[in-house]
Amino acid sequence: MEKLEELFDHIASRVNVNLKPMGIDVRSILQNSIPRERHILYYAFYALTEDHPISFKFKNSNLAGTYFLGKTLVDSSVLYKSNVRGDELKRKGDVVEFNGVKTKLFYDEVIRIINSYLVKTLVHNNSKNPETPEVFRILNSAAMHYSNIHGTTLEGVYLGAFATADLSIMHNCVIGDFAYVQAGDLSRLTVEPGRVWIKSGDLFEFNYIYPEGVIEQYVKLDENGHLTGKFVDYVDEFKEDFVPIYSTARPETDFKVPDTAYVSPYAVLKGRCVVGENALIVQRAHVEDSIIGKGSNAQENCYIKNSVYEGNDVTAHGGKVIWATVGENVFVGFNSFVHGSQDCPITIGRDSIVMPHTIIDPQECIIIPDNSAVWGYVTKQADLETQCMDLDKMAALTDLTLGNATFKGDGKAFVDAFRHRVDHIREENGAYFDGSDNTRGHAQKTRDAAFNILQPFQSGPDAGMYPTMTIGD
Amino acid sequence: MEKLEELFDHIASRVNVNLKPMGIDVRSILQNSIPRERHILYYAFYALTEDHPISFKFKNSNLAGTYFLGKTLVDSSVLYKSNVRGDELKRKGDVVEFNGVKTKLFYDEVIRIINSYLVKTLVHNNSKNPETPEVFRILNSAAMHYSNIHGTTLEGVYLGAFATADLSIMHNCVIGDFAYVQAGDLSRLTVEPGRVWIKSGDLFEFNYIYPEGVIEQYVKLDENGHLTGKFVDYVDEFKEDFVPIYSTARPETDFKVPDTAYVSPYAVLKGRCVVGENALIVQRAHVEDSIIGKGSNAQENCYIKNSVYEGNDVTAHGGKVIWATVGENVFVGFNSFVHGSQDCPITIGRDSIVMPHTIIDPQECIIIPDNSAVWGYVTKQADLETQCMDLDKMAALTDLTLGNATFKGDGKAFVDAFRHRVDHIREENGAYFDGSDNTRGHAQKTRDAAFNILQPFQSGPDAGMYPTMTIGD
Repeated sequence: MEKLEELFDHIASRVNVNLKPMGIDVRSILQNSIPRERHILYYAFYALTEDHPISFKFKNSNLAGTYFLGKTLVDSSVLYKSNVRGDELKRKGDVVEFNGVKTKLFYDEVIRIINSYLVKTLVHNNSKNPETPEVFRILNSAAMHYSNIHGTTLEGVYLGAFATADLSIMHNCVIGDFAYVQAGDLSRLTVEPGRVWIKSGDLFEFNYIYPEGVIEQYVKLDENGHLTGKFVDYVDEFKEDFVPIYSTARPETDFKVPDTAYVSPYAVLKGRCVVGENALIVQRAHVEDSIIGKGSNAQENCYIKNSVYEGNDVTAHGGKVIWATVGENVFVGFNSFVHGSQDCPITIGRDSIVMPHTIIDPQECIIIPDNSAVWGYVTKQADLETQCMDLDKMAALTDLTLGNATFKGDGKAFVDAFRHRVDHIREENGAYFDGSDNTRGHAQKTRDAAFNILQPFQSGPDAGMYPTMTIGD
Repeated sequence: MEKLEELFDHIASRVNVNLKPMGIDVRSILQNSIPRERHILYYAFYALTEDHPISFKFKNSNLAGTYFLGKTLVDSSVLYKSNVRGDELKRKGDVVEFNGVKTKLFYDEVIRIINSYLVKTLVHNNSKNPETPEVFRILNSAAMHYSNIHGTTLEGVYLGAFATADLSIMHNCVIGDFAYVQAGDLSRLTVEPGRVWIKSGDLFEFNYIYPEGVIEQYVKLDENGHLTGKFVDYVDEFKEDFVPIYSTARPETDFKVPDTAYVSPYAVLKGRCVVGENALIVQRAHVEDSIIGKGSNAQENCYIKNSVYEGNDVTAHGGKVIWATVGENVFVGFNSFVHGSQDCPITIGRDSIVMPHTIIDPQECIIIPDNSAVWGYVTKQADLETQCMDLDKMAALTDLTLGNATFKGDGKAFVDAFRHRVDHIREENGAYFDGSDNTRGHAQKTRDAAFNILQPFQSGPDAGMYPTMTIGD
């Protein structure tokens, strides 16, 4: 495994060159977080469909358990059980607009991951980086367990466990465990664990900081990359359900799914589930004893159990929803943990937004009214007084301090941006499909995917390395 | 599936351009022999080991169910459930000798399959073509079910079902069903079904022709490519045994196999089997209730059932051995059908050679003495009078007509060539492995192979086509 060891050294040095000035040394985490033999054990796979132009290049890398869809280059990187989903990559000839300036793409956009280490990380594109719209870049970066990289250029970045970098541009940044950032250019910043930060230029800024001592109960990543806490305990319970799927060359599901919906063969549907028209359940989502209503979706690393989605509901990457009734048009943000129980179920009213990185973990029933935004740490109904607000009321705000949250700026712009985005997600996912070509989304386009399986060398100095590969013209 | 249809048209036209003058039109066979949907159903896989340099290029092709090991290019071809095994490809710098002239390879040898159609065909290299030692070429050719291409350049060739082209050079040839040729340059020849023809320049020539009406009972391929007869009936019985293996991403076997032996995860071991040291059982071999003694092997498409191999026995590609006791150092040639039964078992004495394409299908016990050659169609012990000979006696021959067989030339050279070759096969397979590096063979080198799985597009005009792919530097 000499080459794999060299590769780890190489990545550590590239990340550290960028992050030493920020007080970060990733070497020990990279050395220890995943036992080396696991990098040989799992296989990578890429999806082939007629709707996504293909071009894959893999070079000097380990790709254990990683999923690829859409044009991607991986060079000198270790990707462990990650998801790289390029189904919203822009195409040659597309015109994009950034801050009122229009520019046209000269090539199909490509995801390029170089000198980086991603663990169980979700990479989804739809980048808002105006600098190089043809390239979605992850360079010299380390992203830890269950982090999300969503539409974000990363150069010299450390993302902690369950952290989310969303629609931003990041050069030399450190994002703490379970922090969420969607804040434009974040260069040379350190964001503390559990901060939820949403900022759009001078237009608005939302901030929430988790109370002291809370984050550690849910996520704790030590200096050797060992992950503990309630999130990983929850997720680990369902690990075994994925084993049969991942050991089958062409997994098949027995569940009846409407022709307009898509359940990835690499998702788990367990117990009694109903999947509605236009619904989308992607790879590594886990749905048990639940109803996924028409036009709803479950993204990568979502866990939905004993819940009802009434329709057009979006669960962003990593969202967990247990014992909940979710009204129509609800958005559950990235890595949110909405954990009801049989005795204490959770109701989320229609049109509501569960902000990214929200934890609702109560000992009593929780009812979130229709048309609300909810955020932060909620353990009882009374917490909603400081962590929930009517969206119309929020739209009228210009300034707010409420519990651990602050808001400044144009409330209407903030609410509209959320609503617009959630609607865009539904549209992209095919929630509004009516049989016509221009309403087709991921649910319809991914249906006929074939999955190609890649494995590394099993022995000798190359053990753990994947062969250099170019797929597509 | 428009592109796949175009591809079939293209291959048919290229083969026909070469073979029309020989009275052959393959269009209808290519159109009908395999239902189109099967070309989408199965996946191709290539083996990755540290001992074989890799370089795979697949372009404008369908590769359903095909296995690859070693440097290979496939362009504008349809390969259906074939085996392309390049584990004896020569390397850059190797010096080869043809007719006393030495030449050095400037590149690693590569198998190139272009404009061709192979159905369940075994391609194994170790080519003896002096023209281009860097290229093992299969061009503008159609090879039908269970044919073998072994060390043979093919340009504009039609190989019938269960036919074998062995260590030859072939331009514009037609080889009938179940014919075996090992005869140097065969350009512009038509070889009738069931002829066994072994010729080495002016040194020796062996010929055997099956009695009229026999071949049709065992192999019959109609003008629509539909295959019937006892061979395919026998093989089809065991089809289902391969299904679980081929639907698993990383098949595992429960059988205990010595560290020095290798059983491919894509082989079937069923019932009570014992596998000895240094034994080799490759992909698509089927072994049931049998003992495979030390240093013995079962090649692609071999079926061994209720039999005992005492040691260092070789079963060439497609050999079938049922209810037989096989003494040490026996060679069972390509596609031979040695079909005993519980009441009528077959005994093959040590050091014997079952010539390629022999059928032993008796209603009584058959005993082949030690150190014999046996050939042709044997249904009773008395047949051995005309179809079996002591190898030492054979070595003393210069001329012979015996039953349907004729021999002319240097008997010693003929016997020595066989013995030398069988010994070479054992050596290459690792039968003589003693722990030292220079005795390692396929059994030792293929142990740690990883298998990478390729699938075609599932829908749209590209359905059935595999993406263009380059694997390796």
